[in-house]
Parts: sequence; structure tokens; C-alpha cells
Amino acid sequence: MRVYNFSAGPAQLPLPVLERAASELTDWGGSGMSVLEVSHREKDFVACAVDAETTLRRLLAVPESYRVLFLQGGATAQFAAVPMNLTTAGDTVAYLNTGQWSTKAIKQARAYDLDVVVSADESASSYTTTPDPGSYEVPATARYLHYTPNETIGGVEFPNVPDAGDVPLVGDLSSTILSRPLDVGRFGLIYAGAQKNMGPSGLTVVIVREDLLGRARTITPGVLDYTKMAAANSMLNTPPTFSVYLLGLVAHWIEDTGGLTAMGERNQAKAAALYAAIDSSGFYSNPVEERSRSWTNVPFTLADPALDAEFLAGALAAGLTNLKGHRSVGGMRASIYNAMPMEGVTALIDYMAEFERTHG
Amino acid sequence: MRVYNFSAGPAQLPLPVLERAASELTDWGGSGMSVLEVSHREKDFVACAVDAETTLRRLLAVPESYRVLFLQGGATAQFAAVPMNLTTAGDTVAYLNTGQWSTKAIKQARAYDLDVVVSADESASSYTTTPDPGSYEVPATARYLHYTPNETIGGVEFPNVPDAGDVPLVGDLSSTILSRPLDVGRFGLIYAGAQKNMGPSGLTVVIVREDLLGRARTITPGVLDYTKMAAANSMLNTPPTFSVYLLGLVAHWIEDTGGLTAMGERNQAKAAALYAAIDSSGFYSNPVEERSRSWTNVPFTLADPALDAEFLAGALAAGLTNLKGHRSVGGMRASIYNAMPMEGVTALIDYMAEFERTHG
Repeated sequence: MRVYNFSAGPAQLPLPVLERAASELTDWGGSGMSVLEVSHREKDFVACAVDAETTLRRLLAVPESYRVLFLQGGATAQFAAVPMNLTTAGDTVAYLNTGQWSTKAIKQARAYDLDVVVSADESASSYTTTPDPGSYEVPATARYLHYTPNETIGGVEFPNVPDAGDVPLVGDLSSTILSRPLDVGRFGLIYAGAQKNMGPSGLTVVIVREDLLGRARTITPGVLDYTKMAAANSMLNTPPTFSVYLLGLVAHWIEDTGGLTAMGERNQAKAAALYAAIDSSGFYSNPVEERSRSWTNVPFTLADPALDAEFLAGALAAGLTNLKGHRSVGGMRASIYNAMPMEGVTALIDYMAEFERTHG
Repeated sequence: MRVYNFSAGPAQLPLPVLERAASELTDWGGSGMSVLEVSHREKDFVACAVDAETTLRRLLAVPESYRVLFLQGGATAQFAAVPMNLTTAGDTVAYLNTGQWSTKAIKQARAYDLDVVVSADESASSYTTTPDPGSYEVPATARYLHYTPNETIGGVEFPNVPDAGDVPLVGDLSSTILSRPLDVGRFGLIYAGAQKNMGPSGLTVVIVREDLLGRARTITPGVLDYTKMAAANSMLNTPPTFSVYLLGLVAHWIEDTGGLTAMGERNQAKAAALYAAIDSSGFYSNPVEERSRSWTNVPFTLADPALDAEFLAGALAAGLTNLKGHRSVGGMRASIYNAMPMEGVTALIDYMAEFERTHG
């Protein structure tokens, strides 16, 4: 029996992807080997990695002037890799701070002898808002403007892509990549951990505009050096092969289910249904300003926090798992990434209504 | 039909491990979720990670004064992490150079403003030797002595653990860890990519003596900072969860098949049989000095390189895969890690004998 898993990541994966992986885990494509056992230099695996990249590029309509890299270390490694690759000591960089993930990115950037300008900081709202376009300034000398389109912990999401002018825009798209169509050309650099919408943890996708290559500091570890990794087709060292393979399967599943336009429509409908249920209730509430509500991470609180444990136990019994909110926020959080079907959201809404009826 | 896979890494895995993973890939332990979908903060996964570490510690008899870390980025990331964590600018460090992997480690260390002393360099033998104990000096001021116990490309292996005196010994054990009993107490720091004897690519195990913590440079990316990772039980960020799970399964498989003493005996017997077959032949040869021959990576050449392609095609037809030598060395290479049974080595030896009979 499969459950509806609302984990913020590692997150639910499409069942057809898991079933395919399970079916060939001891014999991949008739090779007599698991994909886990295949050398990354072997032609069948190279073809698998190329297909994963090609499918990802096709889904996102990545322009030819961008390189797609498969790295390790998650977004947290990129918090260091971005300044290491794009700056020299003494440079100015700009950040928008909308929550815990952008805060971490800012803190890591301060290790690299930079003038770190926080152009907007939403802490006054307890990170329940995003800055209005035009309400903040980005220094023209900044090497980049970094932002976090979606904060998984706060459940706050930019309704628009910031306009950074000529300053390259850098985005941590870990929780939104592949959730809807994306205009990659607006960005200088995109990075994303795979464990929400792309596959398992342990794989990071970087999409970098080619003119930003060639600037890495000497101290940059080779495995985080975009230029070296681009030159080696992401195989400067052994890549996380199984994760790349799964990313390919997930990307094909997205194509097979209608691509990113259809995915975006489904995700929007899922989020709309869940927020409508919360807002129409007198029992549940979500703290985020309406225009900045996340499509994918929906935190909500019960009118009486003393009921939290009972809510969670009942949810688990109903096959709805991982609804506990982040330890720093409390309450509940429903993460409804690509692999969560509307049926799962409906099941959650029904459970919430029934719980409210019996406890409200 | 499973083949005998002689890949240098990612390498053959134990079939019972793959079968177990396949059987629970859509429903892990009755959770209704794949282990790929479980949050790393969830108690069942935390227990899985603790069990993987505990089993690894038990197998290797890791002293309590050492921390075991699960990181990402492979040995190549550690080439940078070691100097970042253990030195400050201007320090002296020492390396033994026995092949391509130690050369890469040395090159990366030079990025960190250090006096990099190469205490021994075996390039004169085309890296077919290891330095005699006592034939090289390690500066007493060195922050560490780094060596590569086994070079997977050259197939050369130290027959002993170097004595570095009071200088902490650092070893890249990617291709030898868990192949036999190990005296961890001889080392200040051990690191190893998982993709040979421990599991899939994308996971790096670091075993570090606690007194070496607390020295990381500010520029160290958080994900490579041993001190921060130790404080966070390797969960400063999302770990590669599936790889940690598989490492646990592999570690239990080693215990279930007799532990490291039995494993070492099997590995020694496998290597002895293969080298004996090579040496007793007038057709095959191995270039490595006898005392420094690798237990796990056995390169060999045919008397006539023009026969290489036919040898490989015939091997493939016989279910013996990935025998092509590294592109920088040529010829053949048979990697016979833990998961390769004696039956696979015997099948290779039989094929080699038959090929020699018909082509010699």
C-alpha cells in the first residue's frame, strides 16, 4: 500500500519511475548489470547521462548558450560554489533574503571576502512576504543578484522573477524547478537539488550561462568548479550515476504526462484547492501573504496546537505522511511537488475537513 | 542473466543487496514509501543512517576517538577538503606520489597556498612501484602525510601502511576500504568514495580523528567542513539518502559473509589466482613490481595489442564485462572488489587460458 507522502524533500517520486527502477535494478537494459554497477565511462551510461541532460534541456527549453551540469552536494554546496565561481575577493554581490535558505546562502557568501549587500530582507514579516519589484536596489557593480524563488520552510514564493537589469540573476530553484515552464534566459545561473522534483538526494543540477564560466577562484574545489565540470561534461570525477539515471526517468515521466505546461496547471490547481480549504476554514490558517504563497510547500496551523499530535496520528492512519511542520516553524506543512497527484491533495483536504468537524 | 563485471568503479555490487533494494524500492519496511522518498530527518531514515554508521564502525573497529562522516563529492572533493580542513596558508604538507590519483590530490593541494612536499615520487618506474619504508623523509612540521594505498589505474598498492611518526597520516582508501581488516588507529584521516566496495557513487566516507577537527579554513564550503558535518551528524544538508541506505546493506552483507577477516582471505586468494595465471603465461603480463601489486585492480597486457579488441569481444560474449584497461594505460584491467566472487575470477582465468591457446 502506497501512502501520500507530503515530505518537503527527499520527496514523493512518481510510482512509474520507482517501478521501472525496481524492475531493472539487477539487470539494466539487458546488460546483466545494475545501473548502480556501470562505469560512468561506459558508453551505455554516457548515453543515459546525455539523454537525461537532453530531456531536461528540452523540458526547460534551455538556450544553447547555457551549460547544464550534474554536480553533488546539494544547494548547500552551491551556496559556496556561487561566490567561488563568480567573484574575486573584494567584489560586491547582492542577495534577497526571504527566509532560512536565503539566510544560509548569505552566511556562506560572507566567507569569501565580499561586500555582501542584502538588497531586501523580509525578516520583519517573519518571512511571510516577498519584496515588491521596484522596492529594492541592486548595486550596478554587483557580480550577481541571488534569490530563492521558493522557501521550503516558510512556504513563501516569489510571484515573479526579479529584474536585476544587467546584473546576472542567480536562483536556488531546488523546490520549483520543473514545477512549471521557466524562462531560463532570465537567469545567469540556476541551481537546484534534485530531491524535490527531479529525483533522489545527492544530485545537484546547475544551469549556467556560458559567459559566466572561466572566473572560478583558484581555491574552488574541482568538483564545484563550473568551468572544469563543463569541460569534462560533468565527469571530472565519478558522478552520482544512479541519481542521474533517475533524473532521466523523472524527466521522461514529465514529458509523458504533458510536459511543464500541463504540470504547471496541475500544480496550480493543487495549491489553489489546498489554500481554498485552509482559507474557508475557521480552524486552519496559513500565515503567508496571498501573493507570495508557495505552490509547493503549504504550511498551516491548527486553531489549537494541542491537537497537532492527534492530527498527525490520524493523518498517518489515513495514509497521509510527513505532514509535520519544520521544527523551526511548527504546525503542519504539506509539500505537494510534481509527484503528488490531485487525489493526494483531495485526500488531505477531506481529512482536514473531517478533523475540523470532530475537533473544531 | 548476470555477468561478471570487472569495472573499476562504479563496480559490481553483491546480488543479495541489489535484490533486497529492488524488492523494497516502492515500499520500504512497510512504510508505503520508497527509501528514496523518505525525509532524512524522519526517524526511520535516521535509524537507517545510524545503523549504516554503526555497522561500518563495527566492521572496521573504528576507535571511539574517530568520527565517521557521510559526505558527497567523492575522493576528488576530498583532495580539496583535506587541505582546507587541516591547514592554514603557509603550512607544509607532504604527499607520496604513486600514480594518477595521488598526482591529482597533489595538484589540488597546490591551490591552497601551502608548501607541498612530495616526499616520494614513483614516476621513474611509470608508477609500477611503491616507495620502500625508510626511503623517504616526511618533514616533522608537515600538517599531514597523504598517500594513496591503492592506485586503481596503475594497479599498484602499498604492501604496508607508511610510518609518518607524529605527522597525521591521511589515506585515500577508495579502492581498498572494507577489503580486509584495517588498523584505523594508524591514520589521522581516512576518506573513500563508496563506489567500489561500499555502494553506489555519490557517497564519500570520511573517518577523522577528533583532535583534527576544529581547524577548517573559513573558505571551506560547509558541506566539506568536517567539524560542521560532525556536529550535524553528517546532516548539515540533505545527505545522499539512498546511497547511505545501500552502504548499510553492503556492510551487513560483509558481516553476514564472515566480516573483514574472511573478506581479506577471499580477496587475497582471488588476486593470487589471477596473478599466478598471468605470471605462468607467456602471453599475458603485469608490469607492477611483485610486492606492490594491487589486490583489487589487476592490469595486464596481451603479447600482441592487436588482439585486444578480439579479447574484449570474446570476454563480453562469455559474460565477462568491463575488462578494457584505463584509457591512459591501455591493455586490460580486471577489478576484483569484494562483490566479485572467486567464480568470476576463475571464469576470467579460464577465458584467458582458452584465448591464449587459440591466439598465443
